[in-house]
Amino acid sequence: METENILIKDAQILDAHGQRKGSVLIENDKIKEISPSISPEGVNKVINAEGKLLIPGFVNTHTHLSMTLFRGIADDLKLEKWLNDYIWPLEAHLNGEYCYAGALLGCVEMIKSGTTTFNDMYFYMDHVAEAVKESGLRAVISHGMIDFGDEKKRKAEIKESKRIIRKCHGMADGRIKVALGPHSPYTCSRQLLDEVRSLADKYGLLIHIHVAETEDEVRQVKDKYGERPFIYLDEIGFLGEDVIAAHAVWLSSSEIHILRSRGVKLSHNPASNMKLASGVSPVEELINMGVCVSLGTDGAASNNNLDMLEEMKIAALLQKIKKMDPTALDAGTVFKMATINGAAALGMADEIGTIEVDKKADLALINTRRSSITPWRNPTSHLVYAASGCDVESVICNGEILMENDKLESLDEKYVIELAENAAEELISKA
Amino acid sequence: METENILIKDAQILDAHGQRKGSVLIENDKIKEISPSISPEGVNKVINAEGKLLIPGFVNTHTHLSMTLFRGIADDLKLEKWLNDYIWPLEAHLNGEYCYAGALLGCVEMIKSGTTTFNDMYFYMDHVAEAVKESGLRAVISHGMIDFGDEKKRKAEIKESKRIIRKCHGMADGRIKVALGPHSPYTCSRQLLDEVRSLADKYGLLIHIHVAETEDEVRQVKDKYGERPFIYLDEIGFLGEDVIAAHAVWLSSSEIHILRSRGVKLSHNPASNMKLASGVSPVEELINMGVCVSLGTDGAASNNNLDMLEEMKIAALLQKIKKMDPTALDAGTVFKMATINGAAALGMADEIGTIEVDKKADLALINTRRSSITPWRNPTSHLVYAASGCDVESVICNGEILMENDKLESLDEKYVIELAENAAEELISKA
Ligand SMILES: [Zn+2]
Ligand SMILES: [Zn+2]
Repeated sequence: METENILIKDAQILDAHGQRKGSVLIENDKIKEISPSISPEGVNKVINAEGKLLIPGFVNTHTHLSMTLFRGIADDLKLEKWLNDYIWPLEAHLNGEYCYAGALLGCVEMIKSGTTTFNDMYFYMDHVAEAVKESGLRAVISHGMIDFGDEKKRKAEIKESKRIIRKCHGMADGRIKVALGPHSPYTCSRQLLDEVRSLADKYGLLIHIHVAETEDEVRQVKDKYGERPFIYLDEIGFLGEDVIAAHAVWLSSSEIHILRSRGVKLSHNPASNMKLASGVSPVEELINMGVCVSLGTDGAASNNNLDMLEEMKIAALLQKIKKMDPTALDAGTVFKMATINGAAALGMADEIGTIEVDKKADLALINTRRSSITPWRNPTSHLVYAASGCDVESVICNGEILMENDKLESLDEKYVIELAENAAEELISKA
Repeated sequence: METENILIKDAQILDAHGQRKGSVLIENDKIKEISPSISPEGVNKVINAEGKLLIPGFVNTHTHLSMTLFRGIADDLKLEKWLNDYIWPLEAHLNGEYCYAGALLGCVEMIKSGTTTFNDMYFYMDHVAEAVKESGLRAVISHGMIDFGDEKKRKAEIKESKRIIRKCHGMADGRIKVALGPHSPYTCSRQLLDEVRSLADKYGLLIHIHVAETEDEVRQVKDKYGERPFIYLDEIGFLGEDVIAAHAVWLSSSEIHILRSRGVKLSHNPASNMKLASGVSPVEELINMGVCVSLGTDGAASNNNLDMLEEMKIAALLQKIKKMDPTALDAGTVFKMATINGAAALGMADEIGTIEVDKKADLALINTRRSSITPWRNPTSHLVYAASGCDVESVICNGEILMENDKLESLDEKYVIELAENAAEELISKA
C-alpha cells in the first residue's frame, strides 16, 4: 500500500494537555510526528494552518443518529406525549433505508461541526454502519434492545445484536466497532441484562445503556427491584469498566461511589436533559469523585442538533446555574469531557481524544479569524463559550480529509440533504 | 431622492403572526408590499428567496457592544473577582477609539447572526454611534451612569448623557436613538434616578437599566432603602412604560404585579445569568402575567457571543429545566421574545419586529438547505432549537442590504477583526 501523508503546517494546537504551536505530520491513519517545524518535502498534501486552531475531533458519546429525521417534529411536550404520540408511531414505520438516510444526515452534521467519533444506539444498525463507512467517521454502534420482560422479544433482540456484531464489528478498516445496547434497566428484563453481560465478557464488547434519565425511571426501578438503578445494576453484576451509561441524572451518593469503584463511564447530555426537563446530572461531583464523564448530544429529536461546541457551552452553563457557582465546570474541564473523556469512555484513550504521535489522525481545524471568536486570546474559552459548530473549517478522521475549507469531501452534502428530506417525508406520511 | 427598491422573491415568511409564502417588496427603508407574487419589473435588486426563510431581524435588548474586546479574557470566576481583577482594570483604560473598535466588531457579529436592532449601554457612546452608523444597524444607545452617591460624579454622568443625546439622538437617518442609562438601583443614587426620570419625561427618552440581577443586589437595595429593587423604584416614581430593565432575575410576586401595572419592559439574558450564576428569571410567570419580556445577550464578556439564535435556545431550555416542565417557554414564545417583544420593549412595535407593510425593512434570510436544519419541517422549532447564527445568510436593515450570501456589504469584516484584535491587545497591555 502506498503511503498517504498529510502535513498540517504551523497550527496552534490545543488538546487536554494544553496549548502549543507546531506542525503535524499524518502518515496513513496516524499521527507520525509533531514538531515546531516539519519540511513539506515529499508530502502528498500540505494544509496551511497558520491562524488556525488544531484540536482533536470531538467524541460524541451518546447519539441516535437516524433520529435526525425526527428533528423538529415534536417539541415542547411532556415525555409521555412525545413518545406515545410522535416518536413511537414514527419508529413503527422505520426501515433500513430511512435509518441509512437519517444516519447519513447525522454524519454530515457531525463532520461539519468537528465530531469524528460517536457512540450510537438505534435500529437497523447495519444500515447505519453503511452510512458511517461512507462518511469516513469513527463510531461505536449498538442495536437498541428492549424486551419489557417478553422472552420472545428478548431472544429476537439478542439475535439482532449478534447479527450486527458479526456483520459490522471491525468494519471500515476498524473504524466501526459494535457494542451491546440494552436500552435501560426499566425497559430491559433482568435476563436480558444478564445475557448482555455474558456477551460483553465473551466478546470483549462495550455496553451502551441509558440509566437514571428521569426521576420517574428511578421510581419504576425501585418499585420493581427494590433499589435505585445503579445499585440494582451493581447487585446483578452488570456494571464494569466496559459500561457507558447515558444521562445519569438522578444519582444517590452511594450510586456515585458505585460508579467510581466499578469504573463505569458516563455520557452527560445537558441539552436533552434540559429540553425534556429530565433533571440536572451532578457532573461536578462526579468529576471531583474521579468518575469519567464524557459529553453527548443525544438524538436530534430531543436536542435538536448534534453540535458538540454548543453542547459544551450548555454543559458549563447548566452546572454553573445548578450550583449557583460561576466557577463550576470550567471551560478546560468541559473541553476534556468532549475529547479525551469521550475517548476514555469508549475505551479508546490510547487511540484518539488528544493530538499525540501514534494516535489516530482524528482532527478538526478552526478558523480563528471569525468575528464571534475575536479577539483571539483564550482558545479553550472561545471553543466552549463563543464558537459554534460552523466555526469548524476542516476535519480529518483516520488520516482522511472529510472536510476542507467548509467543503465536504467524503459525502455529497446536497445529495444527503435531499435523501433525508425525502425519507422524512415518506416516513411522516406513513405515521 | 431616487427610489431604491428590493424584491425578495418567493420566500417562506415567518414572524410572530405565523407562517406564509410570499414575496416582499421593499421601497427605500420600508416594506411596501407583501403578496404571493410580485413582478420584478423595474425593481433595482431581486433576491431569489426560493428555499429560504424570511424572518424579522432579531432585536437584542441588552448589550454592551464594546465589551466584545473582553471576550474570553475572564471566565469561570466569581462576579467580584471578575469585576475587580479583570473588567474594571480594563475599563479604566478604555477610550473612544477602543470602544469604536469593539462596537464595530459587535456589529459584524450581530449582522452575521441576523440581529438588526440592539439596545446598548456603555461608555464613549458617540464612538459607538459612529460604528452603528457605519454598520447600517438600528440601535438604542445609552451612556452607562454610575455615581455611587457622589454628587460630582452624578453631575458628570448627567452631563455626558446630555452630550450623547444632543450629539447622537436621531443620527444615521433616525436609525440611532439615545436612551438614558442609569446602571442600576445599587450603583446609582436616588438623586440620579430622579434626574433620569425628569429627563426621560422632558425629552421622551427610554430608560435602560439593570435591575435585580443577583440576590446580593436585592439584599443591598433592601439594606439601603428598606425595599426590594422594583418596589423601591416604584416608590420613587421611577417606573413606567419607557423603562426597559435588564435581567430581572430575583422578583417577588408583588414586584411582578408592579412590573405589569407600570408597563415596565424586561430584557431576559439567560446565557449571562447562567454563566455568572446569577439565577433564573421567572420568565414563564412574567409572560403569563402579561409582562413584556424580550431577549438580550448581555455583553460578550459574560456570554461570550451575541448570537440571538443560541440565546433563544438557551432561554427555552433554561425555563424547562427550572420548572421541570418540557412545555415551558415553547419555541413560538421564545421567537416572539427575540423579535416583536424586543420591538415593543424599545417602543418600536409599530416600526419593526414583524414583517408587515409600512414597517421598516429589517429582515434576515435563512438558508433552509443546511444539514443541521434538515428535514425542513417546523421553521420555528428549527430556529430556536437547531439553527445557529451562522445559518443566517442575508440581512437587510432599514432597506439596506448589510449581508448577502454570507458576505458583509456595509463593513469590511477582515478590517474590523484586525482593528478589534489590535485594540484588545493595546488595551490589555495597559491594564
Ligand atoms: Zn438516548
Ligand atoms: Zn448588562
